[in-house]
Amino acid sequence: MADQADIRICFVGDSFVNGTGDPECLGWTGRICAAASHNNYNVTYYNLGIRRETSADIRDRWQQEVERRLPASCDRRVVFSFGVNDTTIENGKPRVDPSDSIKNARQILTEARRSLPVLMVGPPPIADAEQNQRIIDLSGQLGALCQGLEVPFLEIAGPLRNSEVWISEAIVNDGAHPRAAGYAELAELVQSWSAWRGWFPDRG
Amino acid sequence: MADQADIRICFVGDSFVNGTGDPECLGWTGRICAAASHNNYNVTYYNLGIRRETSADIRDRWQQEVERRLPASCDRRVVFSFGVNDTTIENGKPRVDPSDSIKNARQILTEARRSLPVLMVGPPPIADAEQNQRIIDLSGQLGALCQGLEVPFLEIAGPLRNSEVWISEAIVNDGAHPRAAGYAELAELVQSWSAWRGWFPDRG
Repeated sequence: MADQADIRICFVGDSFVNGTGDPECLGWTGRICAAASHNNYNVTYYNLGIRRETSADIRDRWQQEVERRLPASCDRRVVFSFGVNDTTIENGKPRVDPSDSIKNARQILTEARRSLPVLMVGPPPIADAEQNQRIIDLSGQLGALCQGLEVPFLEIAGPLRNSEVWISEAIVNDGAHPRAAGYAELAELVQSWSAWRGWFPDRG
Repeated sequence: MADQADIRICFVGDSFVNGTGDPECLGWTGRICAAASHNNYNVTYYNLGIRRETSADIRDRWQQEVERRLPASCDRRVVFSFGVNDTTIENGKPRVDPSDSIKNARQILTEARRSLPVLMVGPPPIADAEQNQRIIDLSGQLGALCQGLEVPFLEIAGPLRNSEVWISEAIVNDGAHPRAAGYAELAELVQSWSAWRGWFPDRG
């Protein structure tokens, strides 16, 4: 299909990027790439979500893994999404202090923007009201950071906290990750987002 | 689902592992993991296929990428599949000499077997009769190597070379990669394989 635009995308982040819990093995990232394929784009889909990873873990490995997959000669894009694991309490405090989360995100996004078109999707909520407050707070700070860096940012913690599908699937599953319907709902949010649609204008 | 076996798998290889060309963004790897999920396994699916990579590229990066994704505390598995890119002619000779392909594969599989359950799926054919002969030859040598190392090996080059679906999709697509039906056919071959079935006995 030589007439198709050929785009390679890396999704970099945590278990929610991986799609953990989805029996279809697509998650939101696979669903939106499949939709782009059906919209007549040739998409090469690289999923670089790793369970348990914080912003610090991602800061230390994203560049190497992305460079291997996106040669400069390609039409290449990166989507980041992380933060939930930063807000998990271990030994009486968050795994990553919010100010360090922002520092890590600033470093990641600043480096990425130098050479690549970048989007960021905020951290999603889980089935824990207290942690969700920390996630919402961090999401707000990440949104402000992205605005300053001119990286399009999609806030999802608010909408999904009120989603019966997302929250009920997370409760039934493992307390954090939804299953197919939850990921489909998140995929819908990203697909309706102007920044994502800007990458994949309708080709009918 | 606390009663479900929780298994994390890395698939390491090239574009055929990535699922390049599949508009469903599953490839054969996503399809067999989705089937295992529907067989009541909790599968965490890590796809580490990279386009254009040879056995030498994979030798240099597999361990680092797998270690990040498979902590020793997990039930962890690795499936390798590579070799097609080794057989591509560039500047008048194969990108990787067959004897070096085997050396690379021996190093990868020997290291991997020390700490992980490992399977290997042979390289698939493409829409080029001459290169297919080199792929079939390499596949035979990889099979012999795996037998010596006691790594289960699945030969697919022969069966898929005679598959009308695989070859016709590769021709229509880009000369190498099939689309959804071809990957589904390869997924069937792996799912019928005793070594894969041994990892995922029927849980009804």
